[in-house]
Amino acid sequence: MAIVLGPHQYGKAEVRVVAVDRSSPRHTLVDLNVSSSLHGDFTAAHTVGDNAHVLSTDTQKNTVFAFARDGVGTPEEFGLRLARHFAGSYGWITGARVAVESYGWERISVGGAEHDHSFRKAGAEVRTAVVTVDGSGPDADAHVLAGLADLVVLKTTGSEFRGFPRDRYTTLAETRDRVLATAVTARWRYTGTGTDVDFDGTFAGVRTTLLETFASTHSLALQQSLYAMGEAVLERFPQVAEIRMSMPNRHHFLQDLSAYGLDNTPDGTGAVVYHADDRPYGLIEGAVLRDDVPPADIAWRGTPGFC
Amino acid sequence: MAIVLGPHQYGKAEVRVVAVDRSSPRHTLVDLNVSSSLHGDFTAAHTVGDNAHVLSTDTQKNTVFAFARDGVGTPEEFGLRLARHFAGSYGWITGARVAVESYGWERISVGGAEHDHSFRKAGAEVRTAVVTVDGSGPDADAHVLAGLADLVVLKTTGSEFRGFPRDRYTTLAETRDRVLATAVTARWRYTGTGTDVDFDGTFAGVRTTLLETFASTHSLALQQSLYAMGEAVLERFPQVAEIRMSMPNRHHFLQDLSAYGLDNTPDGTGAVVYHADDRPYGLIEGAVLRDDVPPADIAWRGTPGFC
Amino acid sequence: MAIVLGPHQYGKAEVRVVAVDRSSPRHTLVDLNVSSSLHGDFTAAHTVGDNAHVLSTDTQKNTVFAFARDGVGTPEEFGLRLARHFAGSYGWITGARVAVESYGWERISVGGAEHDHSFRKAGAEVRTAVVTVDGSGPDADAHVLAGLADLVVLKTTGSEFRGFPRDRYTTLAETRDRVLATAVTARWRYTGTGTDVDFDGTFAGVRTTLLETFASTHSLALQQSLYAMGEAVLERFPQVAEIRMSMPNRHHFLQDLSAYGLDNTPDGTGAVVYHADDRPYGLIEGAVLRDDVPPADIAWRGTPGFC
Amino acid sequence: MAIVLGPHQYGKAEVRVVAVDRSSPRHTLVDLNVSSSLHGDFTAAHTVGDNAHVLSTDTQKNTVFAFARDGVGTPEEFGLRLARHFAGSYGWITGARVAVESYGWERISVGGAEHDHSFRKAGAEVRTAVVTVDGSGPDADAHVLAGLADLVVLKTTGSEFRGFPRDRYTTLAETRDRVLATAVTARWRYTGTGTDVDFDGTFAGVRTTLLETFASTHSLALQQSLYAMGEAVLERFPQVAEIRMSMPNRHHFLQDLSAYGLDNTPDGTGAVVYHADDRPYGLIEGAVLRDDVPPADIAWRGTPGFC
Repeated sequence: MAIVLGPHQYGKAEVRVVAVDRSSPRHTLVDLNVSSSLHGDFTAAHTVGDNAHVLSTDTQKNTVFAFARDGVGTPEEFGLRLARHFAGSYGWITGARVAVESYGWERISVGGAEHDHSFRKAGAEVRTAVVTVDGSGPDADAHVLAGLADLVVLKTTGSEFRGFPRDRYTTLAETRDRVLATAVTARWRYTGTGTDVDFDGTFAGVRTTLLETFASTHSLALQQSLYAMGEAVLERFPQVAEIRMSMPNRHHFLQDLSAYGLDNTPDGTGAVVYHADDRPYGLIEGAVLRDDVPPADIAWRGTPGFC
Repeated sequence: MAIVLGPHQYGKAEVRVVAVDRSSPRHTLVDLNVSSSLHGDFTAAHTVGDNAHVLSTDTQKNTVFAFARDGVGTPEEFGLRLARHFAGSYGWITGARVAVESYGWERISVGGAEHDHSFRKAGAEVRTAVVTVDGSGPDADAHVLAGLADLVVLKTTGSEFRGFPRDRYTTLAETRDRVLATAVTARWRYTGTGTDVDFDGTFAGVRTTLLETFASTHSLALQQSLYAMGEAVLERFPQVAEIRMSMPNRHHFLQDLSAYGLDNTPDGTGAVVYHADDRPYGLIEGAVLRDDVPPADIAWRGTPGFC
Repeated sequence: MAIVLGPHQYGKAEVRVVAVDRSSPRHTLVDLNVSSSLHGDFTAAHTVGDNAHVLSTDTQKNTVFAFARDGVGTPEEFGLRLARHFAGSYGWITGARVAVESYGWERISVGGAEHDHSFRKAGAEVRTAVVTVDGSGPDADAHVLAGLADLVVLKTTGSEFRGFPRDRYTTLAETRDRVLATAVTARWRYTGTGTDVDFDGTFAGVRTTLLETFASTHSLALQQSLYAMGEAVLERFPQVAEIRMSMPNRHHFLQDLSAYGLDNTPDGTGAVVYHADDRPYGLIEGAVLRDDVPPADIAWRGTPGFC
Repeated sequence: MAIVLGPHQYGKAEVRVVAVDRSSPRHTLVDLNVSSSLHGDFTAAHTVGDNAHVLSTDTQKNTVFAFARDGVGTPEEFGLRLARHFAGSYGWITGARVAVESYGWERISVGGAEHDHSFRKAGAEVRTAVVTVDGSGPDADAHVLAGLADLVVLKTTGSEFRGFPRDRYTTLAETRDRVLATAVTARWRYTGTGTDVDFDGTFAGVRTTLLETFASTHSLALQQSLYAMGEAVLERFPQVAEIRMSMPNRHHFLQDLSAYGLDNTPDGTGAVVYHADDRPYGLIEGAVLRDDVPPADIAWRGTPGFC
């Protein structure tokens, strides 16, 4: 029996790069958080502290800034460019992963006109991209996951939860009308990695599809909403091979007001009053796939996984 | 010499109440975080543990939910209703403060039409209201602070910083062109507390004024932007007596790329690359006032203060 | 009527300086988060963007690092040194405030012996110091607040809550035995500012006093615990003029298990089961004073205040 | 081609249960955050909203509290008990995972004696356990991962970084003396799941081994420290099959003071001054294994993974 090094990786996390295109008076802005990690033969650094193979994380950071000088493009394209560079930089590096968070900014309007160089941060929602390059050279495999996180949505009705089994510890009442709230995290894998995918356009389309399907689905279970959302994405976007979603059930419990002589029913007067709870919360996670698309486990390596 | 109890208060913090108006199929939603605190004669609770004067914080929470049943209205109105109730509830209670955070939700559009009961959280920005009632009965003084927090804005140009004194420790270069970014926290005090103020309309107007003035001010100092923003609010809204702002200077430093043979100037090609720093940050805080409006220190008691 | 600039200040927040004393092989470590703010005549920066009076926040940051080179000493001493420097640096600067957070590190033990240069972070608790200098020169007034934040404590018994008034909205049952948990934030003001106060020794003594008094007080109200803790500090430490505390009541509610045929009482078998709630929470705040010590409002300016 | 449901799971996250053993006057306290997730045939809930197979997350929460009534024991034992219960509860449930975070409390000392029922929270460090049960009945496979998170450690010397390759983007200087700081997250897998493992004793031993090895390793790379720490654990604890660690490199950069005429070298006078940076940070992740122990991928499913 011997003790050996197992799987490992390293890189630079959370490089906060902001790139401003000033080629016209109407500036544009890209605001990113970039993390890179490298795979390959780094055994000697672990066993004897020999760094001859260790492309320093400081260098990885510098590379992110230097590449941004040429313009960033979409998060997916920037990730592909960086991951291909890192994976091809030295013979002992066999792969690279670049994860990008992108924060949205909207133009400030002044007197009804959009301002050329003043912006307001759009919200807490984050667009994500995870690019994995396996191998080096122009033929290296590349995988692109697009995604979003913290898309917080809520329905005030159109949600039921009933028909569940009841064991000794079950006290929950069935309901035909509850508030349903969640913060959608979704990642979807593209079949293509280059000019065959309109990354910005598809991102916008998937996001709209997720929102519309959440809204228009009469929900019997949060699982049903999740599956309907994923199915709608795959139906509309053939370039998406699979989608994985994580959706916490952010409970809004009907407040019991009977002790003060008040009902709390949707009777059309006043308001129906709920308490928004922080913890605990349900957590529903699932993938929706095409049954004829081969899996690509490597594409998901390093993402917060559930399966 | 004796050891005595000094100023004190107590209450319930962060009651997360969501009130849904279902009086028509087109639901509306109010999402609040309510904190109350009471002033008065609570000495015996401190010195001998006698709770005869302690309106329990659990009761304060219940009251928030019960009052929400009748409908919430604006955050300012809900705060006034609650603060007047608490301040008038027992003879030994001499005042109350209710602080409300309000989170915005926007309707989800489905096929171009706004959905009746499905919503998306609008962002990280928070609307705030702080109501202080001093005394009890219909003649009790009431003060209303409206506000917002975490309104994150950025200019890609139109910001300079030069002409500052240079001492032994000064190394910063002067600049005629920098990125200016901040997260605006603002609170403004109304002269009125009732039907004389359109709380929702004024909030929207002040917010627009802050955004437009930030955008259109060519800034020689973040202090100048702050003052211009406050001044514009007071000029347009006579019902606002004073405004206090706190604006961190979220530094975006031009990245030095010269070591890799790259310039990083706004030459119209590619992008200008900045690093967004977390800490440290500048912090600019100031008030803008009308010189003929008497101060109301009590209105600001308990708000994160700077003066 | 005119619109004018009101109270204002500015500075650099959250300079994260770590100073290592390597004068012997047994290193020591000081880990600080320093924020400075200046008071004085900065009107022109606000009204016309003239920065001739604006000692840049970048310079303030540099000064923190440069002063640390000489050794830091206690947080209070470092704050005094910096605040006196800033307040005396230019004629138009009339005062300065320096707030310091200090993070504790403990030596790692190896084979029972403390290591010379390896440390483990002690916990989430923070030691704080806020120094205010008003005026310039050797005779300028200086005030020192010492403190701590996030000292989390809990009693599993020895806490009651009963005898409170019951109104329409009161549903809380009285209890003679509950869990009491809080996160103590305390700030105390010293009468002296120099060699007359042993800052490290007094800090340790006050902290021990707060812990011991929390533990040994049979509590009829969290207010009673707060007052007892403050009173004990003032009794034992004549150099402390006043103390202000903020103590959230972090509710641990007895879980109702009766639906599953279980009791949940302290009967000596198994465990008594509680649910730890995040929000809402009670919030108890109060000051304990000596009645013959003049107040010093300026010392508290800029601290999160409650009165 | 068809669109189908892929891997999925659901459960209740972050049940905050506090269990107090009052069987003697010297109380003990267990403070947990418990998350459960179930695997099995839940397809109908997704595709048609049929909840007949959905053991509600509310029931899972109730079960956690009910089981705590009997006493919790170690986090690993509590996880095993819950996971075996859930996995065996219905025929369609094929497995369960229970993740437990445990927060430490220390007794408050009063006058040198440990108090019977008053405690202080020990720090930010968290003990973790992840139990996976695959199958049902007494023969179901069970896997136990023990672990810790946020063990923050720092060395003021005894760390080098040199010998790394230099490409176009490399600017980092080599160093023979730097500050090394990290927050260790570690998870280790036991070969046993029952009375053959002393969960509390082994946890304490592994934690001590990690600390001692970090301290006593002269580090040429953070990778070397990581591997040495894992190797030491496997050498001392035969019941540990493998260990995975994630260690951010929390950079402490030597501050350049030369512009103010100051050096910043370890010359034995004053202090050496560093700036603690938040972002970006290096991120070093790796596993250390026995080469004769079969892998158990299912044990790691759902943990934040890197491989």
